[in-house]
Amino acid sequence: MYAFWNIFSLLIAVASIAYAVNLFKQIMLKDPGDAVMQKIATAVQQGGRAFLHAEYKWLAVFVTVVFAALCLGPDDGKEQFLGWRTAVGFLLGSVASAGAGYFGMHCATRAAVRTMQAAKTSLGGALDIAFKSGTVMGMTVVGLGLLGITLLMLFYRQDGTNFVNYVLGFSFGASSIALFARVGGGIYTKAADVGGDLVGKLEAGIPEDDPRNPAVIADNVGDNVGDVAGMGADLFESYVGAIVSTSIIGWSLVPTVLTGVAHSDAMTSLLLYPIVLSAIGIVASFLGTLRVKADDESRLSAALFGGLIAASVFLVIGGALVTSIMLPTPLMTMNGTTTATPWNVYWAMVTGLTAGVVIGKVTEYYTSEKMAPAQTIAQQSQTGAATNIIYGLATGMASTWIPTVVLALAIYWCNALAGIYGICVAAVGMLSTLGISLGVDAYGPVADNAGGLAEMSHQPPEVRKRTDSLDATGNTTAAIGKGFAIGSAALTALALFAAYKVAAKVDLSLDNAHVVMGLLIGAMLPFVFSSMAMKAVGKAANAMVEEVRRQFREIKGLKDGTGGEPDYNRCIAISTEGALREMVAPGVLAMLAPIAVGMIFGKAAVGGLLAGSTATGVMMALFMANAGGAWDNAKKYIEAGHLGGKGSDTHKAAVTGDTVGDPFKDTAGPSINILMKLMTITSLIALPLF
Amino acid sequence: MYAFWNIFSLLIAVASIAYAVNLFKQIMLKDPGDAVMQKIATAVQQGGRAFLHAEYKWLAVFVTVVFAALCLGPDDGKEQFLGWRTAVGFLLGSVASAGAGYFGMHCATRAAVRTMQAAKTSLGGALDIAFKSGTVMGMTVVGLGLLGITLLMLFYRQDGTNFVNYVLGFSFGASSIALFARVGGGIYTKAADVGGDLVGKLEAGIPEDDPRNPAVIADNVGDNVGDVAGMGADLFESYVGAIVSTSIIGWSLVPTVLTGVAHSDAMTSLLLYPIVLSAIGIVASFLGTLRVKADDESRLSAALFGGLIAASVFLVIGGALVTSIMLPTPLMTMNGTTTATPWNVYWAMVTGLTAGVVIGKVTEYYTSEKMAPAQTIAQQSQTGAATNIIYGLATGMASTWIPTVVLALAIYWCNALAGIYGICVAAVGMLSTLGISLGVDAYGPVADNAGGLAEMSHQPPEVRKRTDSLDATGNTTAAIGKGFAIGSAALTALALFAAYKVAAKVDLSLDNAHVVMGLLIGAMLPFVFSSMAMKAVGKAANAMVEEVRRQFREIKGLKDGTGGEPDYNRCIAISTEGALREMVAPGVLAMLAPIAVGMIFGKAAVGGLLAGSTATGVMMALFMANAGGAWDNAKKYIEAGHLGGKGSDTHKAAVTGDTVGDPFKDTAGPSINILMKLMTITSLIALPLF
Repeated sequence: MYAFWNIFSLLIAVASIAYAVNLFKQIMLKDPGDAVMQKIATAVQQGGRAFLHAEYKWLAVFVTVVFAALCLGPDDGKEQFLGWRTAVGFLLGSVASAGAGYFGMHCATRAAVRTMQAAKTSLGGALDIAFKSGTVMGMTVVGLGLLGITLLMLFYRQDGTNFVNYVLGFSFGASSIALFARVGGGIYTKAADVGGDLVGKLEAGIPEDDPRNPAVIADNVGDNVGDVAGMGADLFESYVGAIVSTSIIGWSLVPTVLTGVAHSDAMTSLLLYPIVLSAIGIVASFLGTLRVKADDESRLSAALFGGLIAASVFLVIGGALVTSIMLPTPLMTMNGTTTATPWNVYWAMVTGLTAGVVIGKVTEYYTSEKMAPAQTIAQQSQTGAATNIIYGLATGMASTWIPTVVLALAIYWCNALAGIYGICVAAVGMLSTLGISLGVDAYGPVADNAGGLAEMSHQPPEVRKRTDSLDATGNTTAAIGKGFAIGSAALTALALFAAYKVAAKVDLSLDNAHVVMGLLIGAMLPFVFSSMAMKAVGKAANAMVEEVRRQFREIKGLKDGTGGEPDYNRCIAISTEGALREMVAPGVLAMLAPIAVGMIFGKAAVGGLLAGSTATGVMMALFMANAGGAWDNAKKYIEAGHLGGKGSDTHKAAVTGDTVGDPFKDTAGPSINILMKLMTITSLIALPLF
Repeated sequence: MYAFWNIFSLLIAVASIAYAVNLFKQIMLKDPGDAVMQKIATAVQQGGRAFLHAEYKWLAVFVTVVFAALCLGPDDGKEQFLGWRTAVGFLLGSVASAGAGYFGMHCATRAAVRTMQAAKTSLGGALDIAFKSGTVMGMTVVGLGLLGITLLMLFYRQDGTNFVNYVLGFSFGASSIALFARVGGGIYTKAADVGGDLVGKLEAGIPEDDPRNPAVIADNVGDNVGDVAGMGADLFESYVGAIVSTSIIGWSLVPTVLTGVAHSDAMTSLLLYPIVLSAIGIVASFLGTLRVKADDESRLSAALFGGLIAASVFLVIGGALVTSIMLPTPLMTMNGTTTATPWNVYWAMVTGLTAGVVIGKVTEYYTSEKMAPAQTIAQQSQTGAATNIIYGLATGMASTWIPTVVLALAIYWCNALAGIYGICVAAVGMLSTLGISLGVDAYGPVADNAGGLAEMSHQPPEVRKRTDSLDATGNTTAAIGKGFAIGSAALTALALFAAYKVAAKVDLSLDNAHVVMGLLIGAMLPFVFSSMAMKAVGKAANAMVEEVRRQFREIKGLKDGTGGEPDYNRCIAISTEGALREMVAPGVLAMLAPIAVGMIFGKAAVGGLLAGSTATGVMMALFMANAGGAWDNAKKYIEAGHLGGKGSDTHKAAVTGDTVGDPFKDTAGPSINILMKLMTITSLIALPLF
């Protein structure tokens, strides 16, 4: 059974990557536009590559050091499982995460210019390219994730040792790369954006995306390294983390598996189930992507959301099939009395899938310019920036409640269905359609960049109008994607936490003073981490401000457009250096905090720390992402002509809110998703030290 | 033993109140100034009284309903302890809390005008009155708190039933009144402040505290109902909660008490210890207050802090004496092996006392205009309001780390010393010198109001200069007081949580899915609560803006000062109505959330909820209080002539930050202190329902 499903999943993983490569080739065949567009697009492509190269050079050192440390770690094959086997998994996870980010961005920067070119003739053609590029990202992430896991299944089996004991290294590799990619990308994009806007829009008085602004290419690059590569790395690690922790929990549930079924069979079923489910999810995502087509603006959003729903329906059907084939009946006993059937597990998966969609939709409600929250913030901007900020913060805080209640109910319900395994399977369910849901999400930055390119290459207004409507839809789907990323991060963190509890074998009761002290420290970390990320953006943006001011001052004819070429590369270099320098401290904090607490205060304190950081982390991630999104759309609502429109005092107040929201929603907020997971997996790996 | 220490503590409590009354009489003998001052002061006094009357009328209904519900609650004298005995405690706690707030405010409004009058001749005389007024508040709070507890000791004993089973009602009464007082007072003061400033300073262009502004009296009243009555109620419930929960925990530790000592003796000792310690703390505070004297500005801060330190030293000495007399040796076994001596408990008390002072000092660092954080925010204001806000938020988030680490270490250390009882005693230690520390804190608003009165009655500049220096020192001591309030709230919440764990007898392990779901919901509540409080301020402030605009429009000659009297009472009425209307929803949320979760999901979920809300609550309270304080002082730093001074663009940006900070530091932030404790005590009381 093990070998069959292993190969089955591996083949689907390979097919997923092949599909992504095929889509990429299709995109490359499209018309890349004229020489002017090509020149700008090439600058963006080179800038993005330059950043990733610099980042990966730094990360190579980091990966080498950790690889060596893991090799030297204890591995007795019974209780402690570090050593070279875990190190190999770590290396593979790091490379796969970096590779997914690299390929996704490579494709996105090439797709953007072609999307713009297609927008010259039709909306449908432009959507096709942009969505294909998003799908490349989605299918690459799930394909590489599942490929890595299935390869390691082969590898560890052949070695005669146990998959579940060593596979964590893979997840650890994915997590650590993800954190640096998210934080680094987040700082890069906002330094370029905020720095460029502060001088360009406010001081020099030139419009957004104007090619005279020296930071404009860096800003464009930033969208790619932040929203494409960063988001991809984030969800890659959620995807991997959810599957891996569910397999581990499934395997370790053996003592409670019913005696009517052979132990090893039941263990293997529970181990394989999340892997095969994810393989089916890839097929479902593939089928869903085929349905995304639209020719006029009004159907755009429905087409994308329709694809997502179609994929979910396919998964619900396919999942039922897999469940009935794979899982023995009855499956396991819980609490010594009740029995969980395979269908209990199945419904836990469906619950997770549903919870993800609901949380995504709630995020859309709190941030959309068509809904009350963002409009209220816009109205409060009439009495100035202070009331805009107060209402934005209050909206972000209020937005935590529905997602939290949905998560809590999902946990309660999945636990009633199939215990801790049910909660883990819910995380897998939520993420199983990632192939398409990430595609829908990563399509946004491509559309956004296509619009930027249209502006920079002075295209006629109808082109800009088409890219704008693609972009507007992209903002909505991005909101859904963000809610989804947070919800899945929370469930994945809980699944990993369950694995920690199993491995640590320690009293994690809230009676225990060590748990309580850890809980407080853990609750504090997301706050301090966010503070560091926000200050980092400020510092990097200040360096950008200086440089843009210098160029406007020293390069003659640049500001008034009478001659003088801006030095884009200097700005790109400043963003790159700033991001790399500032990403280290928060990254190190995330990895060292649980290790330090574990070595000084022990396993129970770490358990408390992880619970505390997950609890606060979910709230901070929702608060910051939604406040930032609401501020952004409140500004757009005013720019659409409401309450005085562009240039009014109300608009100025709203711009202040939007600027505050930038590091909230694009740097600190999304990084917390990874913080939660990385700390848990670091604790799992470092457990022998505690 | 019981009777002796009961009477001993009761007498000290009575002495404390007598001292407060005596100080009040001394204040009233001072010169209340001329007719103009008297007229303004009377308006403030009447406004404050009007608000408290309206608030208490509303609360009387609430108290009656809860009293009736408690009377009807189950009381079998074995497992369930509601009924009329708990209801009587509740009533007493409510009345004592309301009484302390009322008397403190009554005194503060009368002291302010006399402080101003004294400031006409000397700084020393003015300090003397302002500090005496603060001490009245401090001594009333501790006196009434201890009196209530000792009276209930007599009452329950005479009734033959157990003190520890019914005394929680007293704490519950204190908590519920405190929440409404804090939230209502916080909304009142900020609605008047923000609303008055938005029209007066920004639209009409008249200075702060100008008597032409119709909201000026309401603003002045707000300082009293928020900072005096609200703060008093907050610390009253911390004080009572810490003592009561420590007594309960001490009593219930009986199974682990050493067999060498008679059980009932040891139980009684552990029950009495926190009560007697608090009595000694009152004496220490009294001795400390005698040392507070200063004649020139440079010695002001040192005099106040010196009094606090002196009281701490007296407590350390007196506590040693009490420990050696009261506690049997050896005291108890912990974890079956190690033994805690009386001195272990003593050092836990000293640890709590020290931690409180350290956390207070850290708060001062993060908010003082003389330190780097506030100055950095001021510098960031040079690039506009957005960077001011970003750095202010980041500073608030960063400020969580030292207090959290100090709390965590205190918990770790006190647990090592004397288990859960040690942690509870630390809370008592931190609060035992409340008589003076609240005095030092409550002196600030009196000095502030004296300054406002000087402005309104057009006093010569040297008077204003004296009150300003009193006020500046008050801001520093208020920062210490706020840190202290949060630290003590956290420890008290943990002590109450320990009592919940003992009473609930349920598995609170983080393995338990119900605990995890509760944890998430609990972590969410402080966010939603803060959101409600902030929006409430916005709504109430908007109503005030409309009214002030109307008066400037309709009352001829008001704006240019050529005639026309402002209608202060209308503004007072608007603040009062707004505060009462808006305080209900967050208050009800705080009380119903744990009850609803408990009734639907059971005791374990509530345990998780309490842990989650305490963990996030501490962070949010620190974040909001310190961000608000830092913004405030960044503005003051600029107003002192730095970075362009008053009226510059930098100053305008800083004013935006200060306005955002107002509901942070004076409404939402401090209310969370109470939220944490109230939810725990509500859960304890409502336990039979779960």
